[in-house]
Amino acid sequence: MLPTVQLTKFTDYAFRVLMYADAANGELVTIDEITRAYGVSRAHLMKVVNALTQAGFLTAVRGRSGGLRLARPAKEISLGEIVRLTEPDFALVECFKPDSPCVITPSCKLYRILDSSFQKFLTDLDSYSLADISIDRSVFPVAG
Amino acid sequence: MLPTVQLTKFTDYAFRVLMYADAANGELVTIDEITRAYGVSRAHLMKVVNALTQAGFLTAVRGRSGGLRLARPAKEISLGEIVRLTEPDFALVECFKPDSPCVITPSCKLYRILDSSFQKFLTDLDSYSLADISIDRSVFPVAG
Repeated sequence: MLPTVQLTKFTDYAFRVLMYADAANGELVTIDEITRAYGVSRAHLMKVVNALTQAGFLTAVRGRSGGLRLARPAKEISLGEIVRLTEPDFALVECFKPDSPCVITPSCKLYRILDSSFQKFLTDLDSYSLADISIDRSVFPVAG
Repeated sequence: MLPTVQLTKFTDYAFRVLMYADAANGELVTIDEITRAYGVSRAHLMKVVNALTQAGFLTAVRGRSGGLRLARPAKEISLGEIVRLTEPDFALVECFKPDSPCVITPSCKLYRILDSSFQKFLTDLDSYSLADISIDRSVFPVAG
């Protein structure tokens, strides 16, 4: 059994939050509601929501009856754009890091090839939007 | 500062071992030699070498003067093929796992899109071979 690798939990949660906000069709949603709907850590969600708000994916309405909603129509939010926000330091191999300890880094051509192939992954994700992965609000067992 | 993510150390080491064997131009190389050249864990390298040998990337010659060499010409070993061997369980998000705890997994369309985009990453890597990232043996400070 070889080890597994995955996009960060940060990306995973970012998708979940945006999909939840999308399912609300413009109604305000709260972090507590999203936390309950997915059964995940509120602290993690807070960080994700802050990043999504700062990046202009979500609009936060303050106050007692405040909450969050998508800042733009779902069809104008590309999936590649989300991954670029949440994985800015996607390091495919050790030599991607500035302090690479690998002795062959200066001569290595692998770096550029992996990076260029990874850009194709992102470009492909750009052809899909949040609207393409839209789900119905009824799918969430707790919210409503 | 957001978290980083990377392909596994297993993939990283697999590339390094194959690049080292390629640089030897058909001469036998040993695990000890590779360990010294990169200054990495011998135990990790052993697992990687076993997997690469079983998968037909390396040929192991047994005995006191034994060692390893590429089982096929470098230009016939594609980079995508290497990543497919070393990352068979590449799970981009939590829902890729069979025991996904995410409540929306049954309705979620993100899985297929991420998987399809990731296949484009692999297909792009298929257009490059080990020969494209070949380096000169003199690059390694310890070996020779």
